[in-house]
Amino acid sequence: MMKNFEYFLPTRMHFGPGKIALIGEIAKKYGKKAIIVTGKSSSKKIGVLDKVTNSLKEHNISYVIFDKIEPNPRTTTIEEGGNLAKKENCDLVIGLGGGSPMDASKGVAVIAKNGGKCMDYINTSKTPTSALPIICITTTAGTGSEADRYAVVTNVETNSKPVMAFECMLPAESIIDPEPMVHMSPRVTASVGIDVFFHAIESYISEHSTPLSEMFSEKAIELVASNLHNAYKNGNDLNSRYNMAIANTIAGVAIEMAGTGLIHAMAHPIGGLCDCAHGEALASVSIGIIKHNFPAAKEKYIKMANLMGTHISNDDPDALKKVIKTLRDFYEPLGLNIDIIKLGVKPSDIKQLTEDAFTTMKICVDINPGETTKGQIEKIFEESIKVAVV
Amino acid sequence: MMKNFEYFLPTRMHFGPGKIALIGEIAKKYGKKAIIVTGKSSSKKIGVLDKVTNSLKEHNISYVIFDKIEPNPRTTTIEEGGNLAKKENCDLVIGLGGGSPMDASKGVAVIAKNGGKCMDYINTSKTPTSALPIICITTTAGTGSEADRYAVVTNVETNSKPVMAFECMLPAESIIDPEPMVHMSPRVTASVGIDVFFHAIESYISEHSTPLSEMFSEKAIELVASNLHNAYKNGNDLNSRYNMAIANTIAGVAIEMAGTGLIHAMAHPIGGLCDCAHGEALASVSIGIIKHNFPAAKEKYIKMANLMGTHISNDDPDALKKVIKTLRDFYEPLGLNIDIIKLGVKPSDIKQLTEDAFTTMKICVDINPGETTKGQIEKIFEESIKVAVV
Repeated sequence: MMKNFEYFLPTRMHFGPGKIALIGEIAKKYGKKAIIVTGKSSSKKIGVLDKVTNSLKEHNISYVIFDKIEPNPRTTTIEEGGNLAKKENCDLVIGLGGGSPMDASKGVAVIAKNGGKCMDYINTSKTPTSALPIICITTTAGTGSEADRYAVVTNVETNSKPVMAFECMLPAESIIDPEPMVHMSPRVTASVGIDVFFHAIESYISEHSTPLSEMFSEKAIELVASNLHNAYKNGNDLNSRYNMAIANTIAGVAIEMAGTGLIHAMAHPIGGLCDCAHGEALASVSIGIIKHNFPAAKEKYIKMANLMGTHISNDDPDALKKVIKTLRDFYEPLGLNIDIIKLGVKPSDIKQLTEDAFTTMKICVDINPGETTKGQIEKIFEESIKVAVV
Repeated sequence: MMKNFEYFLPTRMHFGPGKIALIGEIAKKYGKKAIIVTGKSSSKKIGVLDKVTNSLKEHNISYVIFDKIEPNPRTTTIEEGGNLAKKENCDLVIGLGGGSPMDASKGVAVIAKNGGKCMDYINTSKTPTSALPIICITTTAGTGSEADRYAVVTNVETNSKPVMAFECMLPAESIIDPEPMVHMSPRVTASVGIDVFFHAIESYISEHSTPLSEMFSEKAIELVASNLHNAYKNGNDLNSRYNMAIANTIAGVAIEMAGTGLIHAMAHPIGGLCDCAHGEALASVSIGIIKHNFPAAKEKYIKMANLMGTHISNDDPDALKKVIKTLRDFYEPLGLNIDIIKLGVKPSDIKQLTEDAFTTMKICVDINPGETTKGQIEKIFEESIKVAVV
C-alpha cells in the first residue's frame, strides 16, 4: 500500500556522553538569556543542573531557573513559567530532566511568546505559529519528548491530562547524553525503558505508520531488545545507557510521526487511577492487547519478535504464542509480568477505565490497527486481571 | 563503541504519488517568484515541467525557467543560473529532475544570494551562511540529492568534479513523487537503483556511521533488495517505484550523515574516463572492494546479506562467499555483473585511475573501514578486469 506522508524533524540533535557541556555554546545561537525549566530536585541531585549553569556562565548566557515542575506538570505551573520567561525577557527555554520538565518547557515557550493560558491552545482554533526556541536536555530514557512536539499537561480544574501540540513546539535542538541516565534506579530504568519499547511497537503497528516511521520503530525495538536488560542489571554500563538513550529518542520520532495505540489508550486511565509507574501500566495490559490486535497486525508483530531475536516465520501456526512468549521472556527479568490488580486496579474500576480509554484516548484507539469496540476494551481489561499462562 | 554524533535534517519531505501537484502551495511559503532549475529536455518530455508550472500558476507564483543544466553540471552553468535568479529577483529555487539539476539548484541558490563563482566556495575559507530557499523535486531514484547538502559540480578549466557542501544548501522542502519515475528505462532504473544500493552499503560500513545513519542504511538496503528487480522488470509498477523512491531518499540521508567509501572513490575516476553509467562503474569494482573490506566490516556485510534475504550467521566460515553470492545473484538480473573492461577501461589506465581514486577521492578512502593503500586500490582495479567466479 502506498501511503502519502510527510517527514519533518528539524530538531538538531546532539548524541553522546558528555554532550551536556555543549549547552552554553548551543544556547548562544538563540540569545542572551535562558529560562531553565526543570524539576524540583532530581536534576540538582545528580549534578546536571550545575553542569548546565556552568556551561551557560562560560558562554555569558544569563539565566533564570524555574524549578517548580512537578511530575505530570500542571497547566498553572506552566503558565507561571511562561509569564516568568516573559517578565525576565528570556530569549530561549531550556527543558532539563525527564518528560515532565521537557514537556513543560514547550508549554512555557508558547505562553512566553503568545501569552494566555494553556487551555487557550487546546481543542480551540488558536494556533500559535511561533514560540521561544526550545532546547531539550533529556536525563532519562523514556519519553522521547526531546524529539517531538507534544506536551502532556495536567488540568487540575477538569482533572484531565490533555495534550498541547504545535509545530513550533518542536525543540530547536536536543541533547541526548547518556551520562545522567546512569543515575536511574533499576525500577525507573525498567519502567521508562519499557515505555520506549511500547512507543516503538505502537507506532510500528499504527494505522498512521509509514515506511519511514517503521524504520525508526524497528531500530528502537532492536536497540531496546538488546540493551534494556543490561541497563537494568548494570546501571553504570554507559554503553547500554547510550543505546537506550538513542532508542528513546528515535522511538520519540516514531510516535511524532505515527502516534501510539491501544496500549497507551488503556494504560493512561490506569495511571490516572493508581499510583503506579507509566511503564508498569503499559506492560500490564500489553499482552491482552497484542492478542486482540494480532489478526490486524500479524506480520509486524512477527517482525518485532524477529528483531528481538526470536525467529518466527510468517506462516507459523504458533506465531501468536511465540510472539507472546518472546514478550513474557523479555518482561520477566524486568519484573514486568504484572497484572492490573497488582497496580491497584479493582475489578469494579474496569467500567470507568474502559470509558476513559475509549473516550479520552479516542485518537489512540482510532489509529490502533483494526476496529476496537468498547466491549472489547472492557474484555481486555478483564483479561489483564491475571497474568495468564500462555 | 559509543560515538558522539549529530542528527540534523531540517528538510520537510513530501512522499507519495501525485505530490508534485503540491509545489505551488509549498512555493508560496517562500516567496512570489521562483527560478526552476532543470535539464534540457527530460522534465519537459515526461510532462513534469508542465505539472510544476501549472501548480505555480494556480498559486500565483511567477517563475523563470532555467533549463540549461547538463549531466554533470558545470560551474559556469550554475553561475549563469545564479546570476539569472538574482537579476530576476527570484525568492526561491526549484530544482527539478535527477541529481544534476537538483545539485545545480543548490549552487544556484548560493550564487544568487552571495554572488561570486562556485570555486570561491570550494576549498576556501568562504562559508556562505545563507542561500535562497531550495525546493527539490526528484524525478529519478538514484542520487538522494533531495535529502542532502551536496552539489557535485564540474570545473571544466581544471577538468575536476569537486563538491560544494554547506548547511544552507540543504533543501527547505523536497517532493518525492514516484509517478515521474515510471518513465525511467530499465537500464537507467538499474543504474540509479544500484547507486542507491551502494549509497546504503557504503554509508553503512563507513567509519563515520552512527546508530542513526545505520538505521537509514539498513532500511534502504531492505527496500532496494525487495523492490529494484521489480522496478526494473515492470517499470510501470508504481508500488516498486514508490519503495525505490523512499529507499533513494533515505540512502541520501545516510550519506549526508556518514558519507560513502571505496566503491565511490574507485568508480568516480572510471566515470571520468569512460562514457558509462555511474551505477555500472560502481558495480564493476564492488565485489573486489567488498573482499578487501570484509575483515574490517564483516558483521555489517553479513547483516546486509541478511537484510537481502540470505541467512548467514556471524560465525559461518563461508560468510564472505555467501555475501558475494548474494550480491552476484542480485546484480545478475539487472545486467550488472560487469567488469571494468566492458565499461571501456584499458589495463594501461589502471595506474592513473588508482592515482585519481587515492588522491581526488581521498575523503571517501579515509572513511572506508580499515586502512587502504594505493597498492591495494591498484590490485582491486586489476581484479576487476574480469568478473571472477566466486
